[in-house]
Amino acid sequence: MHAIIDHIQSVDLHAGEEARRYLDTLTKPPGSLGALEELAAQLCAITGELKPSITPPAVIVFAADHGVAAEGVSAFPQAVTAQMVANFAQGGAAINVFARQIGARIEVVDVGVASDITAAGVVNAKVCRGTANMVVADAMQPEQALEAVNVGVAAVERAKKVGAKCIMVGEMGIANTTASSAMLAVLTGESVASLAGVGTGIHQQQLTHKVAVIERAIAARNAGPQAPLEVLAKLGGLEIAAMTGAYLAAAAHRLPTIVDGFIATVAALTACRICPAVRGYLIFGHRSQEPGHEVALRALDAKPLLDLGMRLGEGSGAVLAYPLLQSAAAMIAEMATFDSAGVSDKARA
Amino acid sequence: MHAIIDHIQSVDLHAGEEARRYLDTLTKPPGSLGALEELAAQLCAITGELKPSITPPAVIVFAADHGVAAEGVSAFPQAVTAQMVANFAQGGAAINVFARQIGARIEVVDVGVASDITAAGVVNAKVCRGTANMVVADAMQPEQALEAVNVGVAAVERAKKVGAKCIMVGEMGIANTTASSAMLAVLTGESVASLAGVGTGIHQQQLTHKVAVIERAIAARNAGPQAPLEVLAKLGGLEIAAMTGAYLAAAAHRLPTIVDGFIATVAALTACRICPAVRGYLIFGHRSQEPGHEVALRALDAKPLLDLGMRLGEGSGAVLAYPLLQSAAAMIAEMATFDSAGVSDKARA
Repeated sequence: MHAIIDHIQSVDLHAGEEARRYLDTLTKPPGSLGALEELAAQLCAITGELKPSITPPAVIVFAADHGVAAEGVSAFPQAVTAQMVANFAQGGAAINVFARQIGARIEVVDVGVASDITAAGVVNAKVCRGTANMVVADAMQPEQALEAVNVGVAAVERAKKVGAKCIMVGEMGIANTTASSAMLAVLTGESVASLAGVGTGIHQQQLTHKVAVIERAIAARNAGPQAPLEVLAKLGGLEIAAMTGAYLAAAAHRLPTIVDGFIATVAALTACRICPAVRGYLIFGHRSQEPGHEVALRALDAKPLLDLGMRLGEGSGAVLAYPLLQSAAAMIAEMATFDSAGVSDKARA
Repeated sequence: MHAIIDHIQSVDLHAGEEARRYLDTLTKPPGSLGALEELAAQLCAITGELKPSITPPAVIVFAADHGVAAEGVSAFPQAVTAQMVANFAQGGAAINVFARQIGARIEVVDVGVASDITAAGVVNAKVCRGTANMVVADAMQPEQALEAVNVGVAAVERAKKVGAKCIMVGEMGIANTTASSAMLAVLTGESVASLAGVGTGIHQQQLTHKVAVIERAIAARNAGPQAPLEVLAKLGGLEIAAMTGAYLAAAAHRLPTIVDGFIATVAALTACRICPAVRGYLIFGHRSQEPGHEVALRALDAKPLLDLGMRLGEGSGAVLAYPLLQSAAAMIAEMATFDSAGVSDKARA
């Protein structure tokens, strides 16, 4: 992990400024493409190119289990993590459908599912069989957390090796909104009650129980915001650690990265706390319905591209936003200028 | 026009309900794909199919001039309408770039540009050389408005004939936010000041002037909301009339239709006032920065898919939303069910 952090440089703000000036010469009223223009400038700043390419894209889904599932915090049983990994391997999940639509390579990585995964094509990078129950013990030992971070680094480097120009990371792990909520409460100082949500769909009484479980875990684990890796190890998850590593690696390799919803944004916040220069490489795909997402987005001063009332995870909200990056890249690469098209500019009117 | 209205039937609400039930059997927490699930159900209701296809899509851009441009209501000179038509013909405008991205056929229709259009590939359906200045005379005679509506009907029928499964309509016409604002104020009873905006980018003083021009035109023309075709003829534009016709024809042919921003939504509102069953066929692509768009959306009880601070027109916001329709259609067609994938359902947990 430390080797990759040493490679992270800030995005190229000069290239971003140059892009903004060029955008105002294109045949449209200045600024009339709104957030798409900001997105184009960010892609230029990330890649250092005036006509950035984000094709082909790569989707990586990290799966792992959570000991805290034993506290009854999720609407689904823990076995669903492994069942959904099999579903990913067979191409039947939402993330498969959306990844096919954008022509993305998809890699599923078992970084810590509790049971054996036999499905073909799943990368076996199991660090251990799920985390410990954070109410009674640290979720991970420091070495395990570091190993899981490196699983994420390696996955991005595999994608980079086969030519990926844009990274989208997703997750599967029953009870991982519980772990993410605990991490976020510590990282931001916000109250657990203000950010914990219904996840895959628990009822109000179960939510009250979930909040209490998270509060007990936080009190017992004693981790502070100044030590993000310790927060990750004590309260996080193996897939959240892998996502954190993926964001670090994508930044080190100057790859535009689309962040999914709540869990992904908590991992992104962790990566930015470890290395603030990561922030410039992150594009936020969508606004999740999970209340903690708003808290995490605020901590990163981030405004997502889509707001569709979704709360699925798997990377789905990141992948759905990818066509907007394609549009932004195509706009700057292909649109005519006022001069080249012989269109009267406002200034000359 | 009347022949096409006779063919418009309400969307198939039964098919929409069946789709909603089916969506809850797919491997995702129920409702977790938010607006995408509603969108899938709407596509089923529109087409009457449980696995609707929206490929290939078609983009139609109607261009026309406005006599009211003489009042100095726009940031750009009137010549820009024809110059942009040439830019469309050469493939250099934003709408060309975005249409290519989604693999859409694009047709540019001159329904009333003031000057001769010589660019290759532009459909010549010129009703007249721009509208009259609505401050001093009715923008169109009733027969001209009807002819322009029929230009829109014919364009959708051409697209349908070559297999189009989804319709997106755009416009180009210097001063057409002025015409649309006048129509919208009459159709909704809202004050001109509350809905007129900067269009392509006028300054505050020019906006005050634009509001006064619109108010004078409304007072002079004397059209009421109970007669939408009269509002269209007296205060509208040839391209707005063509868009209105396109929405009517798309509904008659049960084609899912993505509505662009402010001007498109005023045309869509006009179509719905003429025939309320049109509403079910309309999907709203994006929320424009033009303040009147909010008023028009409210009048249609519509919530757009994207909110990117855009205000370009040309159909750009509709085309950018198209990949979300593809995602919705692919989700319902391709995702595994809990049963088929062997994933434990929440109810069985």
